[in-house]
Amino acid sequence: MDNDARDSAASENVVTTTALYPPERITRVREAVGRAGLDAVVLTPGPDLRYVTGYDAHLSERLTCLVVPAQDEAFLVTPRLELAVAEASPAGGLGLEITSWQETEDPFALVAARLAGAARVAVADHMWAAMAFRLRDALPGAALTAAGGVLRELRMRKSGAEIEALRQAGAAIDRVHRIVPQLLKAGRTEAEVGRDIAEAILAEGHVSVDFTIVGSGPNGASPHHELSDRVIGRGEPVVVDIGGTMPSGYCSDSTRVYSVGQPPQDFLDYYAVLRDAQEAAVEAVRPGVTPEAVDAAARDVIAAAGYGEYFLHRTGHGIGLETHEHPYIVEGNTEPLAEGMAFSIEPGIYPGAHGARIEDIVVCTGTGADRMNLTPRDLVVIDG
Amino acid sequence: MDNDARDSAASENVVTTTALYPPERITRVREAVGRAGLDAVVLTPGPDLRYVTGYDAHLSERLTCLVVPAQDEAFLVTPRLELAVAEASPAGGLGLEITSWQETEDPFALVAARLAGAARVAVADHMWAAMAFRLRDALPGAALTAAGGVLRELRMRKSGAEIEALRQAGAAIDRVHRIVPQLLKAGRTEAEVGRDIAEAILAEGHVSVDFTIVGSGPNGASPHHELSDRVIGRGEPVVVDIGGTMPSGYCSDSTRVYSVGQPPQDFLDYYAVLRDAQEAAVEAVRPGVTPEAVDAAARDVIAAAGYGEYFLHRTGHGIGLETHEHPYIVEGNTEPLAEGMAFSIEPGIYPGAHGARIEDIVVCTGTGADRMNLTPRDLVVIDG
Repeated sequence: MDNDARDSAASENVVTTTALYPPERITRVREAVGRAGLDAVVLTPGPDLRYVTGYDAHLSERLTCLVVPAQDEAFLVTPRLELAVAEASPAGGLGLEITSWQETEDPFALVAARLAGAARVAVADHMWAAMAFRLRDALPGAALTAAGGVLRELRMRKSGAEIEALRQAGAAIDRVHRIVPQLLKAGRTEAEVGRDIAEAILAEGHVSVDFTIVGSGPNGASPHHELSDRVIGRGEPVVVDIGGTMPSGYCSDSTRVYSVGQPPQDFLDYYAVLRDAQEAAVEAVRPGVTPEAVDAAARDVIAAAGYGEYFLHRTGHGIGLETHEHPYIVEGNTEPLAEGMAFSIEPGIYPGAHGARIEDIVVCTGTGADRMNLTPRDLVVIDG
Repeated sequence: MDNDARDSAASENVVTTTALYPPERITRVREAVGRAGLDAVVLTPGPDLRYVTGYDAHLSERLTCLVVPAQDEAFLVTPRLELAVAEASPAGGLGLEITSWQETEDPFALVAARLAGAARVAVADHMWAAMAFRLRDALPGAALTAAGGVLRELRMRKSGAEIEALRQAGAAIDRVHRIVPQLLKAGRTEAEVGRDIAEAILAEGHVSVDFTIVGSGPNGASPHHELSDRVIGRGEPVVVDIGGTMPSGYCSDSTRVYSVGQPPQDFLDYYAVLRDAQEAAVEAVRPGVTPEAVDAAARDVIAAAGYGEYFLHRTGHGIGLETHEHPYIVEGNTEPLAEGMAFSIEPGIYPGAHGARIEDIVVCTGTGADRMNLTPRDLVVIDG
């Protein structure tokens, strides 16, 4: 363990589950349900349920859900065989009623009976459609919508504890990026490097590997290329975009570009432009600025240098309990940024023979952007 | 690499992507769509899409979907930035039309325009509810249902290539179980052991760690307990239920019980019963037998020995591209087993101070059950 790791391990003790998932949050959600004109929200396992209760529930074909009625107490529904897990989870400390169902019972009928008469019910955005349809059929009098809009305002504005959790996630993925130069060698395949990176993502403190993009040469020009058996060649730029989920539930996501030996001059030319574009977008971040203005800040630099057609995607996405969440940093999003919002700034240039993307997670503070990723953004040229 | 590993690595070359995901499958799906009286199915990234096309598409807030109309050619919708990935995937080899959309376009409007006039549309069971609602709103004249029923018959009956993929997955998780005795020591926490197991799951050939249950002492009596900071004590039974996904897309899942030092006699008593119950259920498997009869075969042995109240869950679940899929081995499921069906046999006894579960994946053959997991099912008593 080096000093960085020790510092991080020490600071990781600071963010308690209670600070991250405060018990009073469920009251704020209930108020939001009422303001939205809904009778109830039904949250299956996923980021919404975890945000509201801290419970990282197992997602499966067996129904687990938190029901938050606007006018009544919330309750948690769980399969009988997960009752002990639910009780031991942070949700068990909220004083909620926990109702369990047996393997041969119909849990949708159970929920429907409790919501009899409800006319407007919203379900977690990520609820499986098959489950949403079963709930719809069990509640024929209710109109079903997605709960994302109700929770979005709350989830977009990160608390101090959430920002600290994102900072720890950023530090963890930065430690992985610092190891990458030892893993990248001409003659290794992307898949071999990706496997080592996946192990490092776990070793550096994540509980899951969410993605490992190792895009060498032309694969670097395909933004969502993941891994292949392509052998990395000398002088080829390699885009490494990696992330995972921490024990806190919060996610990391950072992209850096490496080259085994000196890359071609045309690459160096546009990499310098990309570096400026990323910087310009980070500089543009402050409360009141629109996401589309941040997107334009990066896009204008790239377009002015003549690479506009090669920037194929939006500039960024929100991050928190999901790798991708609101706010999206994209043309058309005019909802102003506010203090506490966390998102990626990741412009890219993808001409074809190779490509590049530089990505940091930033948090909007009262005066600008606070970067969660601190490894150098210069091209990393590796001997080997 | 030991002999087992070498054998397995050699046989892994046998199952090609084309054998696992034959191009003609999409025709069989289209026929099934017509037989079900549907106008089309819409499959977002997940097991259904992969089953039909072989494409392990990235699941995100950006819509990717395969549309299979009953009366027209299927087509794939992909975000522009994933177009190269889609084209390079097995789906790109099917001769399908691939339509991409830009970041500022509405892909649901694009799909709706192509399905104008459709009255009955089914969506992937795992489509996010928020996406299903957007499709519903874009297709106000169509009734939406879950596509699971349409694909279920096809997916439940595994092909020879799929069975080989499950056998390789079984061999990989068996290799991890063989390492577990070196990882379990009195004084280590469940979380520490779980971390090592997760690394071994990847090292033995999986591309993802799907779950790592290490339930020591009383945690072993909570069937879906995962990991905790509980320190494993001498003489405590430890339930280790682990699984991952292989590069083929097929999943592993196996449970064994270990004890660091000699466990209490009352545990040994019911472990012997559980061993017999698991064997009885495996023996009961053959075409024409109902899943509930297989469930009863295990349950009767446990009940006869006086432990019936401690068997909290069904006997098993189907497995393939998902860890849990049809057929479920549960009371009430009277749809007869057939050759090629693959599922777990995993009875458990959970009195409270400790618990046990024994789990193998089996495939129903013409004459009985073919086990995919071959490590001994006896309690593994470890010195250390």
